[in-house]
Amino acid sequence: MGYAKIAVNGYGTVGRRVGTAVNAQYDMEIVGVVKTRPTFEAMTAIDKGFDLYVPDSDMIGAFEKAGIEVAGTLDDLLDKVEIVVDCTPNKVGASYKSLYVEKGVKAIWQGGEAHELAEFSFNAEANYDDAIDRNLARVVSCNTTGLTRALYPLEQEYGVEKARATLIRRAADPGQSNKGPINAIVPALEMPSHHGPDVNTIMPNIEIATTAVKVPSTLMHLHGLTVALKNDFEPEDIVDLYEGRPRIYLVSGGDGVSDTAKIMELSKELGRSRNDMFENAIWKDSISKYQGELYLFQAIHQESDIVPENVDAIRAMCGLESDGAKSIAMTNKKMGIGK
Amino acid sequence: MGYAKIAVNGYGTVGRRVGTAVNAQYDMEIVGVVKTRPTFEAMTAIDKGFDLYVPDSDMIGAFEKAGIEVAGTLDDLLDKVEIVVDCTPNKVGASYKSLYVEKGVKAIWQGGEAHELAEFSFNAEANYDDAIDRNLARVVSCNTTGLTRALYPLEQEYGVEKARATLIRRAADPGQSNKGPINAIVPALEMPSHHGPDVNTIMPNIEIATTAVKVPSTLMHLHGLTVALKNDFEPEDIVDLYEGRPRIYLVSGGDGVSDTAKIMELSKELGRSRNDMFENAIWKDSISKYQGELYLFQAIHQESDIVPENVDAIRAMCGLESDGAKSIAMTNKKMGIGK
Amino acid sequence: MGYAKIAVNGYGTVGRRVGTAVNAQYDMEIVGVVKTRPTFEAMTAIDKGFDLYVPDSDMIGAFEKAGIEVAGTLDDLLDKVEIVVDCTPNKVGASYKSLYVEKGVKAIWQGGEAHELAEFSFNAEANYDDAIDRNLARVVSCNTTGLTRALYPLEQEYGVEKARATLIRRAADPGQSNKGPINAIVPALEMPSHHGPDVNTIMPNIEIATTAVKVPSTLMHLHGLTVALKNDFEPEDIVDLYEGRPRIYLVSGGDGVSDTAKIMELSKELGRSRNDMFENAIWKDSISKYQGELYLFQAIHQESDIVPENVDAIRAMCGLESDGAKSIAMTNKKMGIGK
Amino acid sequence: MGYAKIAVNGYGTVGRRVGTAVNAQYDMEIVGVVKTRPTFEAMTAIDKGFDLYVPDSDMIGAFEKAGIEVAGTLDDLLDKVEIVVDCTPNKVGASYKSLYVEKGVKAIWQGGEAHELAEFSFNAEANYDDAIDRNLARVVSCNTTGLTRALYPLEQEYGVEKARATLIRRAADPGQSNKGPINAIVPALEMPSHHGPDVNTIMPNIEIATTAVKVPSTLMHLHGLTVALKNDFEPEDIVDLYEGRPRIYLVSGGDGVSDTAKIMELSKELGRSRNDMFENAIWKDSISKYQGELYLFQAIHQESDIVPENVDAIRAMCGLESDGAKSIAMTNKKMGIGK
Repeated sequence: MGYAKIAVNGYGTVGRRVGTAVNAQYDMEIVGVVKTRPTFEAMTAIDKGFDLYVPDSDMIGAFEKAGIEVAGTLDDLLDKVEIVVDCTPNKVGASYKSLYVEKGVKAIWQGGEAHELAEFSFNAEANYDDAIDRNLARVVSCNTTGLTRALYPLEQEYGVEKARATLIRRAADPGQSNKGPINAIVPALEMPSHHGPDVNTIMPNIEIATTAVKVPSTLMHLHGLTVALKNDFEPEDIVDLYEGRPRIYLVSGGDGVSDTAKIMELSKELGRSRNDMFENAIWKDSISKYQGELYLFQAIHQESDIVPENVDAIRAMCGLESDGAKSIAMTNKKMGIGK
Repeated sequence: MGYAKIAVNGYGTVGRRVGTAVNAQYDMEIVGVVKTRPTFEAMTAIDKGFDLYVPDSDMIGAFEKAGIEVAGTLDDLLDKVEIVVDCTPNKVGASYKSLYVEKGVKAIWQGGEAHELAEFSFNAEANYDDAIDRNLARVVSCNTTGLTRALYPLEQEYGVEKARATLIRRAADPGQSNKGPINAIVPALEMPSHHGPDVNTIMPNIEIATTAVKVPSTLMHLHGLTVALKNDFEPEDIVDLYEGRPRIYLVSGGDGVSDTAKIMELSKELGRSRNDMFENAIWKDSISKYQGELYLFQAIHQESDIVPENVDAIRAMCGLESDGAKSIAMTNKKMGIGK
Repeated sequence: MGYAKIAVNGYGTVGRRVGTAVNAQYDMEIVGVVKTRPTFEAMTAIDKGFDLYVPDSDMIGAFEKAGIEVAGTLDDLLDKVEIVVDCTPNKVGASYKSLYVEKGVKAIWQGGEAHELAEFSFNAEANYDDAIDRNLARVVSCNTTGLTRALYPLEQEYGVEKARATLIRRAADPGQSNKGPINAIVPALEMPSHHGPDVNTIMPNIEIATTAVKVPSTLMHLHGLTVALKNDFEPEDIVDLYEGRPRIYLVSGGDGVSDTAKIMELSKELGRSRNDMFENAIWKDSISKYQGELYLFQAIHQESDIVPENVDAIRAMCGLESDGAKSIAMTNKKMGIGK
Repeated sequence: MGYAKIAVNGYGTVGRRVGTAVNAQYDMEIVGVVKTRPTFEAMTAIDKGFDLYVPDSDMIGAFEKAGIEVAGTLDDLLDKVEIVVDCTPNKVGASYKSLYVEKGVKAIWQGGEAHELAEFSFNAEANYDDAIDRNLARVVSCNTTGLTRALYPLEQEYGVEKARATLIRRAADPGQSNKGPINAIVPALEMPSHHGPDVNTIMPNIEIATTAVKVPSTLMHLHGLTVALKNDFEPEDIVDLYEGRPRIYLVSGGDGVSDTAKIMELSKELGRSRNDMFENAIWKDSISKYQGELYLFQAIHQESDIVPENVDAIRAMCGLESDGAKSIAMTNKKMGIGK
């Protein structure tokens, strides 16, 4: 059995979470995380035992002034690892590709980068096998991950004739206080939205149309799905199908979980790190059949649903486990996913 | 040519606007408005020249204490008018039906009441003729009015095979400071939502499925529409179709009108009363064709789109004008609708 | 009696309003307004009869492509006017000073610029006389205008020993959908805030300390004031004092005007242009005496309270009226201020 | 050394947290928690190992239908414990007093109840000694606890001549999606607010004036404090003073902790249960001296700052520890407070 040494480039919303999730596993470990500024995230990274690196030695001074120890540069760090998880801001990640390749480290990017950068887009349930021993991969965005987790089981069991989704997107993450809107609904005027084609990077044969709207909330994305299936179904069958899936969490308005804020409250009671909801939260009582089609609502925790996917991508790419289902089960167990 | 004397029962968000719109017409006039409490709305009603009535003589004392003159009770007012526009809160309106009938006045309710109350639901473009000389009618809700205005022209010109709409609803009106959510997205878990069947009270033969979500905004509802048409179309044809309609206002993200707040800013520049947007605001640059279907986004000003419809309903029910198109044109002109 | 020809440089939130307010007066007129991009504001400016100019002839093409007629450049416009009201974004205004001086036009800037730019800061009630025949002036910011209107009468009648104010600031204007926060309270950590010293540019001898906080609202700033007065008072005296002032509007929670959103609703009923509240809205029922000091809350409409001040500044600087009280009364009457 | 058996009546926002905090201690334990409805909080309480009780046996059916086991009624539970922590909604707690007294159990209420109910109001640093062996106590509200923690050290070290505070209150807790406002600032028009007198229930001799405003945020209350001290100070002295206190957490805008949302992000990195911030978060860079007075901003986590105070109140009232400082240190250690 192998063991992977890992760098995280970018210790922000996603990087912090990947750090925690990786170190909870028994077959991989964080060697260091890369941060550009000496903020509270940097300080608490040290408290958590992560060695801090900077992209450029010019930045070391600012960290020293803040009393934060720096272990070296990204370049130094890449010499010590087998794989880097790039969690830098959207479109910044691409600029590091040549460095990663030159250094001979495997690399995982997030969904803010284009499919073409890695030429392979990953979702653990849908294409784990294709990731084994790869050098480059992109874990798809939070929204695409959420759509894939909902649609892939339907495609497997019933066949998807056509999927439609409306994405009501939270406009900013909880800590992004500079971003609005405060009081507006903002449609993505180009129709359909880019999310449908992004699902096709994982499931190329599915017919899907998506539209998107941005709203003044910070907590979760909400997806309204309408799916025409090739085979007949009853709503109870779909509930059963999802209950058997590893990264679906069924919630119910009847239990008081009536909105995205209530899901975040539920998450506080589940005791995961940072109160994250790593699964798709699908409303059991929204699953219905109308005019022959499947309707449902799900909520996606934009900051965390891609985190277990990153762990699985590492395991596949580094050849630590050849069975996707086993990797998913291991990842879940160590992250507290599944009852 | 006739002339109608009108009572407004309930001088809140809708009642205030119906009052202004009616008095702007030349063939009808407000005799009095009914208010339950001596608030700033009551004070400004007096300033606007409206006589104030109360539902119950018990309430007169509170108005007198606030220095607001009361002209009488609802009962008194109903003796002086031909028709009452009921703008009382949802489900309160129904309780007045027997009084209106007993007093022999025609009555219009708003969309918060059930279709069955009046046994007739109204939209000026779709069924003006059916309202002529009726005693009872319901002007459908802001959302149903908005959906009808968008779908009726499509049904007339292309035939609607199936309409789908996602309603992203503002959670409260601008002045309703007690209502939330502040930071959550709230799905309507019963699927589909009641809006589709409500459209069928006006257009019984259309196949429609709607879903709804509530978001933390006060400004407008936003509708995402996907429509399968019976005949072929190009997006430009749809733009032309809507440009010819009396209560559609085409906006464009390219002109900086990129969200619901910007539409409200645009409305401030148009100079209508209370900065209202009485038309459906449809984004020209969202009108598109994908996988053979029509896609578009529209925004609906929940406080005002039903106001011109109320004026037309009065005109039809009181027999002031037999031609719906003429009534719509008159109403629009006096309300500043249309360039 | 004189007559002033006026340019507005910057036709955004403030410029649009200054345009309307100036053209409502009988002794001044807008010759043209300057806009950098062909947005809906530009289109509606044309509809209102304003000639449109651009800062730079390079920009004309974009307007022509959008079908909007351009009358010339800022340079052309300045040749036709006596005074320019600069409503460009914060800190941009300063860059135009040399052009205005070179062209020999008088200039008014807004509160986003530093006092030093014009070496004179203006408030109509406090220092109209000092503005007469001046070439350069700065109308102080919405917050400073609001504080001055509340404090100047107190200083005149009772003497201010020490004023304290907490400014709970709306984080963005209604149309600024890109600005946050969506869900955070943001303190201005430098204490005290810059607002106190800014009041001293108008009232140099007053002792004042201010603190500021930004909150997720778009509607109005709210000020909590605590003032130690040199002479004794009763709350009723303060109510009387403010009732006699030209740009104070007393509101009352008892009448249902319980928050900033309700003031905006009240404004819709008052029928001013764009539903603006040009006065300080002071809550009558908040005026109280505690531990010997005066306490009160007021709300300030950030988009409009400085508009009548700009009109008065024009009148003083262009020598159209030598009596400040007369100018204020004229401005108010034409803008619908005062019952 | 004693050991206390505890009931929690009301397993909502506060009750859940008291449950976790109590069970983290070594000298006390939860025997059962009381819940009125079979919601997700009830389900997760079972998962955490808490026995569930209901106020009335009528309610058992609803729980059984939801598949949740009920251990008995509140009456049964009170027979098994020495002390009950009442976390029922505001003003409901008072109605249980006679039952608690009759059953001979000690009782702690929260700050939503009046001081007079228990005739003793508690804060661990200020009056632990007075709580020893008491039967009834009220832990003061989140805001009063926050004000007391900030003011008590100042009173001890410098003497407080006069304290002023403006409370910018979050309008709803994160899970209270029905409460607004969505877009308004709501002043508490009665001046001063009730918070000052409530501080006097703990520190009777301090002169304090408070005002309060409600804003559209769910995350934390923010307090602006201005304090006239009897003895001279420098800002650095105050930083040192607070650094030595057990329930103050100094944050800094310079480290990126610039608002209440950022404090909540910081809390996620600290790894406490539910990401709670149990301490007052005081901005180090806001601590300043102006016109001879101390100015500072602090943020108060409304859901959790009173939780460690409840633990200390239990310890004092049950006679488990006679030294307040030792109790505070024990509580903190087990809750992860203090580095």
